[in-house]
Amino acid sequence: MVSLAERMATVAEAIELALDRLLPRPSGGQARLQEAMRYATLGGGKRLRPFLVAAGAELFDVPRAQALRAGAAVELIHAYSLVHDDLPAMDDALTRRGRPSCHRQFDEATAILAGDALQSLAFEVLAAPATHPDPAVRCALVQELAQAAGVAGMCGGQMIDLEAEGRALSMDQVLELQRLKTGALLGFACEAGAILGQAPAAARAVLRAYAADLGLAFQIQDDLLDVTGDAKVTGKDLGRDAAAGKATVVGLLGVDGARGRLRELSASANRQLDRLGREVPVLRQVFEFVISRSN
Amino acid sequence: MVSLAERMATVAEAIELALDRLLPRPSGGQARLQEAMRYATLGGGKRLRPFLVAAGAELFDVPRAQALRAGAAVELIHAYSLVHDDLPAMDDALTRRGRPSCHRQFDEATAILAGDALQSLAFEVLAAPATHPDPAVRCALVQELAQAAGVAGMCGGQMIDLEAEGRALSMDQVLELQRLKTGALLGFACEAGAILGQAPAAARAVLRAYAADLGLAFQIQDDLLDVTGDAKVTGKDLGRDAAAGKATVVGLLGVDGARGRLRELSASANRQLDRLGREVPVLRQVFEFVISRSN
Repeated sequence: MVSLAERMATVAEAIELALDRLLPRPSGGQARLQEAMRYATLGGGKRLRPFLVAAGAELFDVPRAQALRAGAAVELIHAYSLVHDDLPAMDDALTRRGRPSCHRQFDEATAILAGDALQSLAFEVLAAPATHPDPAVRCALVQELAQAAGVAGMCGGQMIDLEAEGRALSMDQVLELQRLKTGALLGFACEAGAILGQAPAAARAVLRAYAADLGLAFQIQDDLLDVTGDAKVTGKDLGRDAAAGKATVVGLLGVDGARGRLRELSASANRQLDRLGREVPVLRQVFEFVISRSN
Repeated sequence: MVSLAERMATVAEAIELALDRLLPRPSGGQARLQEAMRYATLGGGKRLRPFLVAAGAELFDVPRAQALRAGAAVELIHAYSLVHDDLPAMDDALTRRGRPSCHRQFDEATAILAGDALQSLAFEVLAAPATHPDPAVRCALVQELAQAAGVAGMCGGQMIDLEAEGRALSMDQVLELQRLKTGALLGFACEAGAILGQAPAAARAVLRAYAADLGLAFQIQDDLLDVTGDAKVTGKDLGRDAAAGKATVVGLLGVDGARGRLRELSASANRQLDRLGREVPVLRQVFEFVISRSN
């Protein structure tokens, strides 16, 4: 039996290769931009989102090449968001994945452009025929990813997060923030395999519900690591949320309360998956991984 | 006979309405972001790109609603690029369309996010069924716009432009810069109507060739206005290219040389349009407009 760690390593390796092929190689006058795009995307990260795409795709017999392209697209959006979130005008982060953040390795202008061009590339990849023979499926992927990334998703969540600095948010407001900032893109990742596999609406609804629990759990664990983690392991600056006065579930419930919430979310996610009427051990395991990870 | 100015005003009005409907209204925690997206997009500009989409769409009997959606998408990308280009780390522009630039009206973080969310929205609009009943057409639009906006287009051109500051570029290098920075998006605008109308490849090739001449002419006229224009009329800071040591066709050929080049480009564009084998007065007129405009 293949362990989750081995499965994740296999997908991470395949995604690295896929991204390497999709990202332009440095040449000509845009070489610096191409280098920054590669720096921001290659050689790091758990590749959790592409793994979720692959896990969903497996349930619906989607060819591996299609899942890798959709996984690469969501990872390109994730990478762009990290580059922009790290900018001095945003979270002003010095390190990312244990290396200087993109704007420190290059410069601010290049980092802004690299994020912009990574976002364009994500949609270019999804819309290309190699992603799925049926253009209606490709359009559905573009629409869903654009919604997850935009003002009603990730960008909107980051705006709420910035506005919340130094203000007291209610639990409902924190949950809404996290649902948009982290949850939307994880939701797309969980559902993409079902879209590619043209799965029934009921299965898509289950995966969306699972993703909602997973997204919140992911963020709570992130917040716990920000408080209790080791910067050498996480590869990024820690204690920043508290320093910035950011509202988090951990801040509202305390460390023990947040851990209790993780257990509730895990139980809820497993109940959702029961409704699929088939065994989905990988999705159950990945939930446990997300809430027990140390980076 | 309807004048070009009247035609442009009609399309500009329709696009303003379309953008107003597509852009989210300020509400909830993301209100500031939604306001910034609207500020950056509504109430200004010549709407040249949507006009080109509409002019192309008319040639191939494309329903007006489809042309407006594709026109809105390209305008969303254009608006996002202006917001990001104006940022302090990029061109550091104080004014745009006669108003404070987006990051001055709001703040840098909000401007970065507004640009990001506008880009997502452009692809969301194109991929939605309302843009065209055939999803293959919508995918083609997404692919073409993503390429025009990304590292092999607009973003790549902006990178070359930033790198060129204070350096001497050859004419070939300047032409390559302009082809990417301005030409790629104008090229999409000229071709979008033909994509929507599923026009023959030969017609698309003519429109691409026309767009290449138009894009360069547009940029030369922009550079001429930067040297000889009136800030009250252009609505943006002037003399910035020379101050930043930017390489332009005007810098290389002088004002008279650049005007001569505009006449050559106009003749070339008209020869291209002759190959369509039908009368296209609007496309000929819009070229003359672009090279004689004062803002």
